[in-house]
Amino acid sequence: MKVMIDICIVPVGVGTSVSKYVAKCQDIFKEAKLSYAMHSYGTNVEGEWDEVMAAVKKCHEEIHEMGAPRITSSMRLGTRTDRNQTMQDKIDSVREVLGES
Amino acid sequence: MKVMIDICIVPVGVGTSVSKYVAKCQDIFKEAKLSYAMHSYGTNVEGEWDEVMAAVKKCHEEIHEMGAPRITSSMRLGTRTDRNQTMQDKIDSVREVLGES
Amino acid sequence: MKVMIDICIVPVGVGTSVSKYVAKCQDIFKEAKLSYAMHSYGTNVEGEWDEVMAAVKKCHEEIHEMGAPRITSSMRLGTRTDRNQTMQDKIDSVREVLGES
Amino acid sequence: MKVMIDICIVPVGVGTSVSKYVAKCQDIFKEAKLSYAMHSYGTNVEGEWDEVMAAVKKCHEEIHEMGAPRITSSMRLGTRTDRNQTMQDKIDSVREVLGES
Repeated sequence: MKVMIDICIVPVGVGTSVSKYVAKCQDIFKEAKLSYAMHSYGTNVEGEWDEVMAAVKKCHEEIHEMGAPRITSSMRLGTRTDRNQTMQDKIDSVREVLGES
Repeated sequence: MKVMIDICIVPVGVGTSVSKYVAKCQDIFKEAKLSYAMHSYGTNVEGEWDEVMAAVKKCHEEIHEMGAPRITSSMRLGTRTDRNQTMQDKIDSVREVLGES
Repeated sequence: MKVMIDICIVPVGVGTSVSKYVAKCQDIFKEAKLSYAMHSYGTNVEGEWDEVMAAVKKCHEEIHEMGAPRITSSMRLGTRTDRNQTMQDKIDSVREVLGES
Repeated sequence: MKVMIDICIVPVGVGTSVSKYVAKCQDIFKEAKLSYAMHSYGTNVEGEWDEVMAAVKKCHEEIHEMGAPRITSSMRLGTRTDRNQTMQDKIDSVREVLGES
């Protein structure tokens, strides 16, 4: 089962600057050879369910190791059995309706 | 690593009534012997990370098997290394501040 | 238009204990005479869209005034035109399927 | 008070294709002259709280008018009083840590 997620990881108890923790997660997604794209309020990741979730777990583990005592993440998870659809496909579908494609 | 999640699973393409799908997930959390509590817009589940996530995966798989071609879930995930805190502890902390405990 | 929300407000930059901020929001929902119910990872609130959103804005404003320099909230918003459905109705529907009602 | 949101709007009861509803929301954000950016699992929007929330309300209203009987959205909301930070600033901060800037 493939999954597309959108995740925003918030380390709590380490001040207001969270860039280095977000950067660490980008590294984890890259090393896991997953397809991912960061935006201003989270990161899209797609791949096999188990691989994506293993990367999410690693993000929590490593951010704790970096010193954050508490983490709260918000995540969307999308799965579908009717057809394959990549992150780019979803954007293309909307752009087509908007007459931008 | 323990995790506390709050999950809202939305089957798409099967009409507006989603009760039977939500009920299926309650069964899955129960069978997995996880601590869980349903509210009006989701379900809290707590336990070991791998067990909780295995149950979430099973929810997606079984709802697809029930006929939903597409599922989009929103989930919060909380982990902490500074102390153990159950679902009840979190509620008690707020009630104490409110003078209700 | 009525709305049912589920909101989890996370003050960032004020340490790991967030109970007093969550308690403040409960007070705000109460003063606004909205129907609300706290759970372990958020709070359900229902009412007229404008009233609910005014309360959410007030939560952010007052938590900033309490000293939090940064807040990140995650919120679900549900609206429907096919029928009225209260927070309790949603729970009852699932319990009926589970044979608990 | 400025706010940055990330919103994913899910019409329920209208089948699995949601592109035209997402496109409608892009139009609403554009007409409201808000800064916004779509990604594969939602849209980032920033601006004054009241203007952003008015646009979100309009999205729900217009999608109901397009025929969706039920809508469930998931939204992140970020506010901060310590400094101004645009959507681009957030991305730049992470890229700087990653050595990509």
